[in-house]
Amino acid sequence: MEDRFEISILLDYYGSLLTEKQLMVMNLYYNDDLSLAEIAELNNTSRQAIYDLTKRCYKQLLSYEEKLKLRDKSNIRLVMKEDLIKELKTQLNITEKYLNYIDSKIEDIINI
Amino acid sequence: MEDRFEISILLDYYGSLLTEKQLMVMNLYYNDDLSLAEIAELNNTSRQAIYDLTKRCYKQLLSYEEKLKLRDKSNIRLVMKEDLIKELKTQLNITEKYLNYIDSKIEDIINI
Repeated sequence: MEDRFEISILLDYYGSLLTEKQLMVMNLYYNDDLSLAEIAELNNTSRQAIYDLTKRCYKQLLSYEEKLKLRDKSNIRLVMKEDLIKELKTQLNITEKYLNYIDSKIEDIINI
Repeated sequence: MEDRFEISILLDYYGSLLTEKQLMVMNLYYNDDLSLAEIAELNNTSRQAIYDLTKRCYKQLLSYEEKLKLRDKSNIRLVMKEDLIKELKTQLNITEKYLNYIDSKIEDIINI
């Protein structure tokens, strides 16, 4: 069973590689919580066609992640940042406030 | 006229989205500096077929960059890192050596 949250994250990373229509349907289903029937009606097509499209796109998103690993890399970057912040905390005499500032700056670097 | 260095960089980011054969040919041409004729001979095909493949793949790589902007983002991250390091240098009393260490750690985070 696929995880809606996971798919929403993968859409953030790889949505731009889908066609405009695929991205629209995936967003309606996974981010806006419309039902398959509602999306089918909006697109003048069948519930089955929308269902098939979402399954196909989900596989496509997984395949992109397998190849490019953008989500994986982002998670690893966040762990590396945590390690560095811990290190700065023990090695340097930096105030908590400034440490939080550095933390958020590195997070900005990761999340652009 | 395409820039060989640029294509080599794009291959680093998006090579995994090409087929095995496309990636092999692109690497031979842009990273190993084989001629089109040499690659054609290795693949039992014509020079023209290899030429067409490299042109097609180049367009594909540009299209991926246009959509995902991984190279752009990496460049922006490096600029953001430079800004942060400059800030740490002026705001905090950190030795040059330790500053270089932080710099290299953030670069590691960017380059994974």
